[in-house]
Amino acid sequence: MKFVTCSYKGKELAGILSNNGKDFYPLSAFGCAEESLNAFIRRDGMHRFSDWEEQLASKTADVVPLNQIKLLAPIPEPAQDILCLGVNFMAHAEESARFKKEAFANDRKDTVYFSKRVNRAVADGDSIDGHFDIVDSLDYEAELAVIIGKNAFQVSEADAFSYVFGYTILNDVSARNLQTRHKQWYFGKSLDGFCPMGPWIVTADAFEKPPRLAIRSRINGELRQDSTTALFITGIARAISELSQGITLKAGTILAMGTPAGVGMGFTPPKFLKSGDIVECEIEGIGKLTNPVK
Amino acid sequence: MKFVTCSYKGKELAGILSNNGKDFYPLSAFGCAEESLNAFIRRDGMHRFSDWEEQLASKTADVVPLNQIKLLAPIPEPAQDILCLGVNFMAHAEESARFKKEAFANDRKDTVYFSKRVNRAVADGDSIDGHFDIVDSLDYEAELAVIIGKNAFQVSEADAFSYVFGYTILNDVSARNLQTRHKQWYFGKSLDGFCPMGPWIVTADAFEKPPRLAIRSRINGELRQDSTTALFITGIARAISELSQGITLKAGTILAMGTPAGVGMGFTPPKFLKSGDIVECEIEGIGKLTNPVK
Repeated sequence: MKFVTCSYKGKELAGILSNNGKDFYPLSAFGCAEESLNAFIRRDGMHRFSDWEEQLASKTADVVPLNQIKLLAPIPEPAQDILCLGVNFMAHAEESARFKKEAFANDRKDTVYFSKRVNRAVADGDSIDGHFDIVDSLDYEAELAVIIGKNAFQVSEADAFSYVFGYTILNDVSARNLQTRHKQWYFGKSLDGFCPMGPWIVTADAFEKPPRLAIRSRINGELRQDSTTALFITGIARAISELSQGITLKAGTILAMGTPAGVGMGFTPPKFLKSGDIVECEIEGIGKLTNPVK
Repeated sequence: MKFVTCSYKGKELAGILSNNGKDFYPLSAFGCAEESLNAFIRRDGMHRFSDWEEQLASKTADVVPLNQIKLLAPIPEPAQDILCLGVNFMAHAEESARFKKEAFANDRKDTVYFSKRVNRAVADGDSIDGHFDIVDSLDYEAELAVIIGKNAFQVSEADAFSYVFGYTILNDVSARNLQTRHKQWYFGKSLDGFCPMGPWIVTADAFEKPPRLAIRSRINGELRQDSTTALFITGIARAISELSQGITLKAGTILAMGTPAGVGMGFTPPKFLKSGDIVECEIEGIGKLTNPVK
């Protein structure tokens, strides 16, 4: 099932898309309060929607056609910073170290975790602000994002997938000059508008555990990243388990699993983004997230 | 003026303390909704309270004596991760590099920014969970925390202090083994209960701009850190200005300004925290934040 957030008649509404992708059903159609997707997930993220598919036929009065809404990022204002895994594909670890050894070299024995502030996630189709006044090396990173569906504390790897609400696509836009200049990666990852996300969350029941999905990015149609989530160095279950040994991952937490090889800094010379470029991130079974650079 | 959050008759209430420190006035006494301090700051952080001192005499009916409340952290659940400055005192930069060069060495030309997840900030007097099942090197870091009072974007250094709501004390509790093992500092800083904060926010009008305040910590009464906020490498105005060139610092953002020399890892051999230790962080003009280690 696809969960979305959209704007409709000037209001922000959360709900689901029909299987054919043509209709939007607001959460209120299923007896839920008109609330954000984040609030819905926090309250009841793991089981509230199991019989909704069967109910759709009886909900025709609640349908809103897609041409009357504008899709927003599925969680437009994440309740906490995005939790991210760094250099989590072997080939990307190599290209990163080649670009700037002191900033990215890692023995890969232990997972690199960092965070990314997202004041407001960017919707599919909306622009990425390049902040070119302070950024000279704007880069893209197609990533699978995991949405946690109930509070996770000291979860075993075996149980980890019972905490996953669903998956979406996230572009971990990065300013390489700021990311490396300030030693810790936070600032260069957290500029306003650096987090396109969406177009929707596909619930976990649609995938294997763990999901093994093709992940790609294209810039102006040119294939740049082309890998599979089967190649994560640290898998989803291990990341949830390891982090939750010390941190309660609250329902609604977004975990970005890291990007494969083929980012701009991986090329010689680097292929950084410039104004007017079109960035397309694609994950099998979820869809495409397309954003022009402003 | 001192802003606090407390629990009173099972409810979480925000308000202010009287000048003599004996009475609590809830926000509702001043015509504000019963809301969190975070919501209050987000809505009207910079000017709503300027005449409240004069009103206190007429608010006796609203007074709650201190012995009927329990103080909580002033912002118990920060809306976003805490934004932190790393190695922002010269002597602490030296002791950190001595402890583990590859994790902390920095040419100090550019400020180190990182973040710290805080699911729930720990109140003055409450315990720090040492997570000793996964932590073998628990450390303390007394810090001045700056509370941003209105959304700040592309603010100049000259204007920066007009965005400051107030100041509090923050203990940036750190698991050195996790902080260094995972390369980026995030995980080792973000365990549940690693952020004692308080006891209150003192509003910015009580201080010079920038504030030059003695900052100290004591472990079981032994003086460990003893410096002054006049020695920040990157000052408050510069940090607000630099970060806001790319990130909107939303009202309610908490900026932790870094810790002086004298943390546990700075000693040879290191003096890490153990169960039963009492950690006291003190900043001139604000007060003391005292927490036992569980």
